[in-house]
Amino acid sequence: MFEAVLSAETWRKCVTAIGSLVEEVPLKITAEGIELRAMDPSHVSMIDFKMNKEVFAEYKTDKETIIGIDIEDMSKFINRSRSDDILVLKLDEEKNKILMVLKGTSTRRFGCQLIDATEQSNLKMPTLNTTSKVRLSSQAFRDGLKDANIVSDHVSLKADDAFYMNAEGDTGDIEVKIEKGDPDLYEILVSAAAASTFNLSYLTDMSKSIPGEMSIEIGNDMPVKIEFEIEGASFVFILAPRVER
Amino acid sequence: MFEAVLSAETWRKCVTAIGSLVEEVPLKITAEGIELRAMDPSHVSMIDFKMNKEVFAEYKTDKETIIGIDIEDMSKFINRSRSDDILVLKLDEEKNKILMVLKGTSTRRFGCQLIDATEQSNLKMPTLNTTSKVRLSSQAFRDGLKDANIVSDHVSLKADDAFYMNAEGDTGDIEVKIEKGDPDLYEILVSAAAASTFNLSYLTDMSKSIPGEMSIEIGNDMPVKIEFEIEGASFVFILAPRVER
Amino acid sequence: MFEAVLSAETWRKCVTAIGSLVEEVPLKITAEGIELRAMDPSHVSMIDFKMNKEVFAEYKTDKETIIGIDIEDMSKFINRSRSDDILVLKLDEEKNKILMVLKGTSTRRFGCQLIDATEQSNLKMPTLNTTSKVRLSSQAFRDGLKDANIVSDHVSLKADDAFYMNAEGDTGDIEVKIEKGDPDLYEILVSAAAASTFNLSYLTDMSKSIPGEMSIEIGNDMPVKIEFEIEGASFVFILAPRVER
Repeated sequence: MFEAVLSAETWRKCVTAIGSLVEEVPLKITAEGIELRAMDPSHVSMIDFKMNKEVFAEYKTDKETIIGIDIEDMSKFINRSRSDDILVLKLDEEKNKILMVLKGTSTRRFGCQLIDATEQSNLKMPTLNTTSKVRLSSQAFRDGLKDANIVSDHVSLKADDAFYMNAEGDTGDIEVKIEKGDPDLYEILVSAAAASTFNLSYLTDMSKSIPGEMSIEIGNDMPVKIEFEIEGASFVFILAPRVER
Repeated sequence: MFEAVLSAETWRKCVTAIGSLVEEVPLKITAEGIELRAMDPSHVSMIDFKMNKEVFAEYKTDKETIIGIDIEDMSKFINRSRSDDILVLKLDEEKNKILMVLKGTSTRRFGCQLIDATEQSNLKMPTLNTTSKVRLSSQAFRDGLKDANIVSDHVSLKADDAFYMNAEGDTGDIEVKIEKGDPDLYEILVSAAAASTFNLSYLTDMSKSIPGEMSIEIGNDMPVKIEFEIEGASFVFILAPRVER
Repeated sequence: MFEAVLSAETWRKCVTAIGSLVEEVPLKITAEGIELRAMDPSHVSMIDFKMNKEVFAEYKTDKETIIGIDIEDMSKFINRSRSDDILVLKLDEEKNKILMVLKGTSTRRFGCQLIDATEQSNLKMPTLNTTSKVRLSSQAFRDGLKDANIVSDHVSLKADDAFYMNAEGDTGDIEVKIEKGDPDLYEILVSAAAASTFNLSYLTDMSKSIPGEMSIEIGNDMPVKIEFEIEGASFVFILAPRVER
């Protein structure tokens, strides 16, 4: 038995953020809330997501269970919600579906077929020895990625006294510098200057659904760790660095 | 001789609605106004359109005549009108064209070539023994079609105590329920519960240009009849049911 | 040495207008300002552009020089600017780049690779014996081109007592008449009635970035001359007439 009620808008934003990286995921339902950890199909990035039961208007479950979700199917459903719809999530174990009932000016019931997602379970979070942590506005980060995309398909993230995004290509080179005093930089903590290069399309996909602020942790030629929240749910994205040729 | 004056906006909306179903149509000009009845190229749906001379600012004709119109050509012209343009329609029998003069901040004259559309004439409206009639907002109908489209390319319309739109596919099933008390349901009259299944793309095309409210009449495995008005012009759409496999 | 400071928005608009016609251009930097004259790759149209040093907030150069710019590359950069960004243009002769520094809430530096554009230098402006000059709103001109595009891929520009745009195709014919008294016509000077026919896609591309008003000079089967200003910079477009078949 699992039944939970929350704002359709909150669920929509979270599903969009999850779907920016992964497709088929094991959603773990526990007494504390729901969580998932999954890698993208090419195993270059990882997502860790947690939504505590406090985020829900109602939350009831009688046992811990893992269900397989096709995030794209679920997205199609939830993207049809309106901003003030209430969403009821219900597990129908007999039919092997998760029911999503949207209540607004009409009542819409979606029965979303569950899938097998057992191979993704028991992923460990890697330990990263990053040396710099930057808190900034997600909009500034997205803008920098778009700038970098003009000349290249990868970008170097650097931190020393300021946060830098650099890209270089045949037609020119670009540097975006966000420094102390700029309204988009909230905090910069650097124990040692660091720089790593990443695939732009992964970072761009990740960055799209981040609201407000985010934190970026980088080291030298090391995975980047991006953390943010969506209306009480916590997200961690990990992306492996690009090996320079 | 035929000459008529009306709001370009009204004509644009009507032409858009007609063009959502049919391409080449016989437009009948009578002393009472203009009308057309036509089937779509695959003969699955029918449209019946009437615009009484009262809708026009001026309306003059000296004999009943039928002219063949390529609705797509006419759409391209009229879609370039602005909301406060005045439209003059004039038949140029010599050049075999219908002239459309748009008067606004400039004067734009379109001469639209007439075509042969004789094979479409003398269509009869079918008599339908529907058992349910629902009046609802066209927006709620369009939304339900979009929901259904998530899982399938066809939709069942049902009426008993409420109006239902149901669809089922491999990834899940969807039900939209609009019931008494919902602000989008204006009236529901059911002499016997009824359900029929239809092609989604036809219904979607039909529904796009319906403003405000509409009525839907359904029976069991029977064509659906959709009626609505656009600024004084009356429309009837008929769509044959999908034969279940 | 060349260094100049101006509104990024002004530069963006000018680069967009230049890029609507030509791709690789020789930008001439003189003590008076910057200028360029170039033909499109098919040699059907010519652009003449001048921006006096008064348009710049700062302007410094120590010698006259011509640099080759790929307008598309430069567009990608400058299109990422925000409306209140300040742009610093700097020539880096050593690296053979033009630096563009955008200063806003962050600092973004683009190094744009220079190219060889010597073959375009020393173009002469043709002398045209036009007999009509019309000043009108660029919006009315763009609208007329869109109207013409419904039936054809070319358009006749005519002037006598009024300004006309005519097009004719298989599905119909179109005439746009802008006459004295229409709010979009500011001035019409006709020494002899004139008409010439032009390729629509060239005129459409040219017209897209023209703000506010423009002037059109035409003759009989003669190139058209279009003049306009963008925030103090002056533009002349010349387009050869279409040879009727």
